[in-house]
Amino acid sequence: MTLVIALDAMGGDSAPGIVIDGAAKALRQTPGLRFLLFGDEARIAPLLDRHRDLAAASELRHTEVAVAPDAKPSQALRQGRRSSMRLAVEAVKAGEATAAVSAGNTGALMAMAKFVLKTLPGIDRPAIATLLPTRRDPVVMLDLGANVDCGPEHLFQFAVMGEVYARAVLDIAKPSVGLLNVGTEEVKGDSVVRAAAALIRDSGLAIDYYGFVEGGDVSEGRVHVVVTDGFTGNVALKITEGTARLFSSALRQAFRSSWRARLGYLLARPALDRMRERFDPRLYNGAMFLGLNGVVVKSHGGTDAVGFAAAIATAIQLVRQGTNERIIAEMNAAAGGVAGPKVVAS
Amino acid sequence: MTLVIALDAMGGDSAPGIVIDGAAKALRQTPGLRFLLFGDEARIAPLLDRHRDLAAASELRHTEVAVAPDAKPSQALRQGRRSSMRLAVEAVKAGEATAAVSAGNTGALMAMAKFVLKTLPGIDRPAIATLLPTRRDPVVMLDLGANVDCGPEHLFQFAVMGEVYARAVLDIAKPSVGLLNVGTEEVKGDSVVRAAAALIRDSGLAIDYYGFVEGGDVSEGRVHVVVTDGFTGNVALKITEGTARLFSSALRQAFRSSWRARLGYLLARPALDRMRERFDPRLYNGAMFLGLNGVVVKSHGGTDAVGFAAAIATAIQLVRQGTNERIIAEMNAAAGGVAGPKVVAS
Repeated sequence: MTLVIALDAMGGDSAPGIVIDGAAKALRQTPGLRFLLFGDEARIAPLLDRHRDLAAASELRHTEVAVAPDAKPSQALRQGRRSSMRLAVEAVKAGEATAAVSAGNTGALMAMAKFVLKTLPGIDRPAIATLLPTRRDPVVMLDLGANVDCGPEHLFQFAVMGEVYARAVLDIAKPSVGLLNVGTEEVKGDSVVRAAAALIRDSGLAIDYYGFVEGGDVSEGRVHVVVTDGFTGNVALKITEGTARLFSSALRQAFRSSWRARLGYLLARPALDRMRERFDPRLYNGAMFLGLNGVVVKSHGGTDAVGFAAAIATAIQLVRQGTNERIIAEMNAAAGGVAGPKVVAS
Repeated sequence: MTLVIALDAMGGDSAPGIVIDGAAKALRQTPGLRFLLFGDEARIAPLLDRHRDLAAASELRHTEVAVAPDAKPSQALRQGRRSSMRLAVEAVKAGEATAAVSAGNTGALMAMAKFVLKTLPGIDRPAIATLLPTRRDPVVMLDLGANVDCGPEHLFQFAVMGEVYARAVLDIAKPSVGLLNVGTEEVKGDSVVRAAAALIRDSGLAIDYYGFVEGGDVSEGRVHVVVTDGFTGNVALKITEGTARLFSSALRQAFRSSWRARLGYLLARPALDRMRERFDPRLYNGAMFLGLNGVVVKSHGGTDAVGFAAAIATAIQLVRQGTNERIIAEMNAAAGGVAGPKVVAS
């Protein structure tokens, strides 16, 4: 099967440059890929001249409309029908593309993806998931902000989707799943997380449910999948990124603070570069919109070509692993469990 | 006025050793302090022999009961009436001590403090606040887990208390206050944070309200006070600590990975030590229970004598700055504002 990736060429701080460079990189990594590029032909065509292979593997569809980074989702939905973002999502709906990737406005992309693609059977709300580095394997965390108010059934659905996602992108046969909470004892937290825990335990699904995890367990890699509501997940993700930035800048400052420290840096540099690679946010780029009838991946708006290529690679992996088909199968099995003799706490 | 600090000598992973050593350190930093020590005499007396000045400044009150680190708050309340923790809090209530410090079970300490001391007029629920390092001044964050479910009025009260706390411990005349949210636009977040924002804006108090802040703004030091519910705050604090631990351990690993890196470390060490000092969690030790009729400070359970001394220093600062009197005055002013012509959104 030829993989066709629809790209919102106008989304992201440095679009369309990083989108085209990123696509060229992705093509080198995965020969045989094809692209549908949506955006301003006058700006994209000159960029394609630098990448002959990409030009040959792409179809460029011109549109002058682009979603502003600060557009409200509702506004983008109404006014962005001919936008590069919307057309990329529509291409997935029409079956012309296997997946869509955009580095544009997250809220607008989620609104369009929900409106155009609809959710998978059994899934009430899509969630945003990403990978984060830990002391051990990377961890899948969701939801990262699509749903600020969540009920137990939503957290349960996130757990199912996150588990399938971890199997697909981390290649782990039986990923463990934890619910983020303020403590690990069963009595901790609010009624929503406690009811969600009961739903997962009683679902009849073969999920390796670990129990509650605390904030500190995320970076320890205590579980493969961390499930939380979109409010907490969004704060957690941005706190993690902020703390990493603070630490990095303090380290840079320390190495610049004296000639002795500068020399020390030069000596330790190969080791420090390897460490930086391990935590390179570009390698963790590509947040999946899970639970939609189609694969849509959101790249960080501020990423570069390497990061955008990583987002495309995530989309490819999700398609190849049949993530959505697996989610449908799990939700079917859960529905069977609920209808059966098992009592589901609520 | 002689400051008398009541210490739960049995709380914390390495109690009573770090409590006594920490008190001795605090006494050297603040001559004239007096201590009421609650705990097992057989274990504490030999430790006091090593600290003659502390022994002279302390009264040791024996009890054999200690609250277990994993005791449930309700259980500790019922069974811990003669515990070192409870007696330290009771000493504040009785006016024998000006403040209490414990490195024991947080939930039990909060339950006892609430039960014994009650909340300040105008405050429905006490909150846990602490300082975190940022790129600029340290930031006050609350609530860190005392209240997992919060309404707008609670977040408003946390904002008032956090602002007063920042004035007291950071010595800032007019600290800026932000509400933690998933975005900075007014339409972002759930109904609770939006209603809380309206309450702060319309309170008539002279709070320098910044607006919504995101997770990444915390370590940027965008505001002096970050207000959130206890669920999000607890996760945020533990995610911050976890990310810092992950980074530190990766850095240690990098410096050990080759002889060249080891040599680089030795050269850069003075600069790295200064950086470590800046982020030393012991200096940020001492979480204040804000909103109680009395000063109670919770030390990290795993801290050492330096950290415990810092927790005592926090308690002293809060007493000297008249934090509780200031909170009462603000809540009185807010109540006046509410009763006045101003319309308070809800």
